[in-house]
Amino acid sequence: MKLGRINHIGVAVPDLDAAIAYYREVMGATSITEPFVLESQQVRVCFVDTPGLSGTSGTQIELLEPTSPQSPVAKWLETHPFGGQHHLCYEVPDIHEAKNWFESLGKRVLGDPRIGAHGTPIFFLHPKDMAGQLTEIMETPKAVH
Amino acid sequence: MKLGRINHIGVAVPDLDAAIAYYREVMGATSITEPFVLESQQVRVCFVDTPGLSGTSGTQIELLEPTSPQSPVAKWLETHPFGGQHHLCYEVPDIHEAKNWFESLGKRVLGDPRIGAHGTPIFFLHPKDMAGQLTEIMETPKAVH
Repeated sequence: MKLGRINHIGVAVPDLDAAIAYYREVMGATSITEPFVLESQQVRVCFVDTPGLSGTSGTQIELLEPTSPQSPVAKWLETHPFGGQHHLCYEVPDIHEAKNWFESLGKRVLGDPRIGAHGTPIFFLHPKDMAGQLTEIMETPKAVH
Repeated sequence: MKLGRINHIGVAVPDLDAAIAYYREVMGATSITEPFVLESQQVRVCFVDTPGLSGTSGTQIELLEPTSPQSPVAKWLETHPFGGQHHLCYEVPDIHEAKNWFESLGKRVLGDPRIGAHGTPIFFLHPKDMAGQLTEIMETPKAVH
C-alpha cells in the first residue's frame, strides 16, 4: 500500500454547536459544513475546512457528537470529557484492496466496509494494531479528484 | 485570526524506530525525515510526509519519542502506553500576533514562544481551553511558501 492523503482528523466533542462556535470564534474557521446525523455511527457530524498549500483544500477536522449513550463516541467521551482527537482518516483508491492489505498483516478491521460521512466506503482499524491510533480508511471520493 | 494550515499531527510513540517501521511497512510511507533530538521538549522527533491534493505536500505526522522520563511526552505515554494522537499544529503568519490573539480570549499559552521542530517559533495552548485538543501554533516556515 502507498500512504494516502490524510482526509480528516476526527475530533470527538461533547457539544457540537459549542465546538463549531469554538472553531469559528477562536480558531478563525470560515468554512464549516452543515451538521448531519450519521446513523451508522450514532453521531452528529460536520467538517471544518482548513487550507492546504497552493490554494488546495487541506486536511479537514471532523467534529463528532454522540447522538446516543450507545455511540462509540459517547463511550470514548466518558474517559475524555472535554473531547479531543479521536481518529485519523487516510484515503485509499480501493477500499477492498485496502481491507485485504491490512488483514494480510494481521490488523483487526472493525466491522465491514460501510458508507462514511463523505459518502464513500470506510472501515476502522483497531488502535492497538495501529501504533495507538484509531485509524479510519476511506475510499477517495471520485468527484473531488 | 484566520484558520491556518494544519502543519502536522503530533503522535507520541514509545519507540520511534518501531513507529517509523510501522509507517513504512503498514501505512506505506515513502518519505520520512531523519530523526533528531529536540532538547527543549526532551523528545526525539521525525516527520512522516503525506500527500496533499494536486501534487502538494499534505499535513505531516510528527512522531515523538521521549528522551527522558521528565519529558511531557513521557508523562503523556504513562496514560497512553501504546502511543497515539498527542497534539495538532496549525500554522500562523506571525507568532506574536497569534499569542496576543489567544491571550486576549483568555486561553492559557504554555510557556514563551520557542523554536520548534521545523525551526520556526511555536507555542502550545492548554487542551482544556481548546476543545480538548493540545494545540500547537507554529509560525509558517518562510522558505516553504
